[in-house]
Amino acid sequence: MRAVSPDAPAYDVGIAGAGQLAQMTVLAAWPLGIRVAVLGSPGEPAAPMAAGVVEGDWKDPSALLAIGREVGVLTLENEFVDARYLTAVAAEGTPVRPDPERMATVQDKALQKMALRDAGLPVPRFVVPESPDELEAAGRDLGWPVMLKSRTLGYDGYGNATCRDLQEARAAYPALAERGGGVLAEEFVPFERELAVMVARRHGGGDAVYPVTETRQHDHVLRELLCPAPVDPGVAHEAKRVARAAADACGGAGVTGVEMFHTPDNRILINELAPRPHNSGHHTIEACVTSQFENHLRGILGLPLGPTELVAPGAAMVNLLGEHDGPSRPDITEAAAIGGAHIHLYGKADVRVRRKMGHVTALGGTPAEALETARLAASAVRL
Amino acid sequence: MRAVSPDAPAYDVGIAGAGQLAQMTVLAAWPLGIRVAVLGSPGEPAAPMAAGVVEGDWKDPSALLAIGREVGVLTLENEFVDARYLTAVAAEGTPVRPDPERMATVQDKALQKMALRDAGLPVPRFVVPESPDELEAAGRDLGWPVMLKSRTLGYDGYGNATCRDLQEARAAYPALAERGGGVLAEEFVPFERELAVMVARRHGGGDAVYPVTETRQHDHVLRELLCPAPVDPGVAHEAKRVARAAADACGGAGVTGVEMFHTPDNRILINELAPRPHNSGHHTIEACVTSQFENHLRGILGLPLGPTELVAPGAAMVNLLGEHDGPSRPDITEAAAIGGAHIHLYGKADVRVRRKMGHVTALGGTPAEALETARLAASAVRL
Repeated sequence: MRAVSPDAPAYDVGIAGAGQLAQMTVLAAWPLGIRVAVLGSPGEPAAPMAAGVVEGDWKDPSALLAIGREVGVLTLENEFVDARYLTAVAAEGTPVRPDPERMATVQDKALQKMALRDAGLPVPRFVVPESPDELEAAGRDLGWPVMLKSRTLGYDGYGNATCRDLQEARAAYPALAERGGGVLAEEFVPFERELAVMVARRHGGGDAVYPVTETRQHDHVLRELLCPAPVDPGVAHEAKRVARAAADACGGAGVTGVEMFHTPDNRILINELAPRPHNSGHHTIEACVTSQFENHLRGILGLPLGPTELVAPGAAMVNLLGEHDGPSRPDITEAAAIGGAHIHLYGKADVRVRRKMGHVTALGGTPAEALETARLAASAVRL
Repeated sequence: MRAVSPDAPAYDVGIAGAGQLAQMTVLAAWPLGIRVAVLGSPGEPAAPMAAGVVEGDWKDPSALLAIGREVGVLTLENEFVDARYLTAVAAEGTPVRPDPERMATVQDKALQKMALRDAGLPVPRFVVPESPDELEAAGRDLGWPVMLKSRTLGYDGYGNATCRDLQEARAAYPALAERGGGVLAEEFVPFERELAVMVARRHGGGDAVYPVTETRQHDHVLRELLCPAPVDPGVAHEAKRVARAAADACGGAGVTGVEMFHTPDNRILINELAPRPHNSGHHTIEACVTSQFENHLRGILGLPLGPTELVAPGAAMVNLLGEHDGPSRPDITEAAAIGGAHIHLYGKADVRVRRKMGHVTALGGTPAEALETARLAASAVRL
C-alpha cells in the first residue's frame, strides 16, 4: 500500500471529514498498511492518529479538491458533502467512492426514496410537496400524522418533524425546506422496532451483508443496539434481502447503512440509507470477524471483502451521549471494572448535551446479556 | 484521561521506543482516551499514529529524561533500556512501569534466573561463568551441549549460542560476553514444545493470566503460535501457575511474557521473561476479550484489568518475516481473499531477511484450523 512512484499520491485514502467515523476508519486502516488522510481541523477526533491532515472543511469545494490531490481514493464519513464538488474531485482524476452520482441520489431523501421505490423495494408511502400549499393534499394522501423531513442535511432528528395536523405541518415547513432543498412528506409508520443492516460493497463487484441489528433511538438519537435483532428468521432474512437490494439500488462502493422499520404485521419498510460506516455498525469492531470500518476500506479499494459473521452469540452497543455542556474530562476507571465491556472514546475536547462522545460494546451468550454488560459500563464512564 | 491542569503532562503514557509493540499499544490506547507518546524517529512504526513523538533514542539517557518530562507514566517495548537511566526518570517524578528495580533484574538473564530459582520456580540448571576459564567446570556441571547466552541485550537468537563442547564454548564466549555484560550458561533442554503465557499485572494489585500458547520458533525467531496450546489440562494449569508466579517474582506492572519449555516428561521449565507485550501475545488482539496491549496500558495506569479468555475455540498467529532486503512494497490483495485472516502490517519502510514486518491472526473451531487460515493468508501477503 506504500506509494511506489514519485507520482503516486501521498496517502492511499482520503476521508472528507475527521469525526469519529473517520477516526475508527483510520484505526482500522493502519494494520492493513493503508495510509489515510482526513479533511478537517487538528482538534477533531480523527486528526491525531491519521497519516495526514488536510486542514479545511468538507463544505468547501477547494478543500475537497486539495485532499483529492493528495490521495488515491476519496471517501466520506457523512452524506452531506455536495455531490457536485465530489464530481469535480473525480474530474481531476481521483476516484470518489461511493461515486458522486449515487451520492447525489442518496443525499436527497426524496430522490433516495424514489430510487428505492423504483427498484421495487418496500418504503413508507411518501409525497414530495413543492410548496406549503401542497401539505393539505399530502396529509389527505398519507393520513395524519405526517413525517416531514428536510430533503438534505438531516441527521439525529435535526431536519425531521412529526406533524399531527396541517397546522403543525405548515409551521414546520419553512425551516425544514430551508435547511435542505425542500421537503419530503412520509406516512407515519407505527413500527414494532427499528432494524439496521450494514452492507459492504466492493468496487469491482461483490458484497457482504452484516447480521441484522435492532436499534433503539430516543429523541431521534441512537441509544443502543442489539445484534442479532430479536426477530424471527424470516424477518431477519427479509431485512437482509431488502438491505442488500437497497445498497445495490443506490449505494456505492464501501459500506452502506440501511435503516428499516419492522412493523407489527411483520413488514419491513426502508427508513433511510447512509452511504458510509454508521453508528448502527459500531459493534462490528469487536462483534464481527471483519469490522464495518475495515470492510469500508476494503470495498472502496477494491480489495476482497472480509467475512461479516458474529464471533459471539450476542452483541450489544450503547452510545455515550453528553449530558452536560463543557470541556470533556473522561474517566474510565469505574467502567473498566466491568469485565468484557469495550470502551471507545472519540477524544472530543468538549462535551455537549446529546453529543456522541463514544460508545461501549459487549459480547455475550445472548444479545440481552451483552446489553446488560454494555449498559453497566456505559453508565460508569465519566465524560 | 485528558490533561486537566496546566501542570499535567502532555501525554498520559510514554513508551521508550517506537517499534511495532509501541504501535499496537498506541492503537489500543486511542479508544480508551489514553494519549501515548513514543520515543524514536518519525520513520519508525509507532510514530505516525502516536499522539506525540519525542525524537531520540532509548539508549540515550537524556532522551529518556526528555520523554519522561512529557508523560504521566513511562513504559517500555523492550527490556534493554538501561535500568539506571529509568531510575533517573523516576527520580524526576515520573513513574516508570514496570519499575526500574525489577527491570534491572529481568534485563540481566543471570539475575532473572536467580530470582526465579530463589522464588522456587522451575528453571533449567544454570551457572554464571565469570571468565572463559570457568567454562570447563560449567560443561561438567551442566553436561554438553551448553546454552551460552549474553546476560543482556539478547533477542531472537542474537546473543545465544548452543555449544556442543568446550572448544565451541570458548570460541563463542568473547563475543557473547562483550555483547551483554558477561555470560549465562544453561543446560540444553531437549523440549517437547515451547509454551508462552502472557501475564498482566495491575499497578496497585491484581493480575490476569492469558491462555497458554504453543510457540514455534525457527532459527531462534518466533514463526507461529497456536492457542490454546495442545497440552493436557494439567500441563496448561502448571504453565499458568508458573507464569503467574514468575511475573510475580520479577515482573512489574503491565504485561510480562513468560516463555517456557514443556519437556517430554511433562515438566515446565522457564526459558525467559519479557517485561512487556510480546510476540507470543499478538493473537490476543482478535482472540481474547482484552488484548495484551490494552491490558498493558490498564496495568501500568492502575486501571482494572480486562478479561483474558479466548472469544473462539482456537486461535493462531503467523509472523510475516522479511525474505529479502530492500524497500517494502506491501500488497495484501491476495491475502485479503482468505476469509477470517486478520492482517497486521507494521509499516516498516524497509524489508530485511528475518525482519518482523507484520503478522496474521485467525480464529477457528480448533487451533489447527485457525493455523491453516493464518498460514494461507501469511503466505499470500507480499512484503
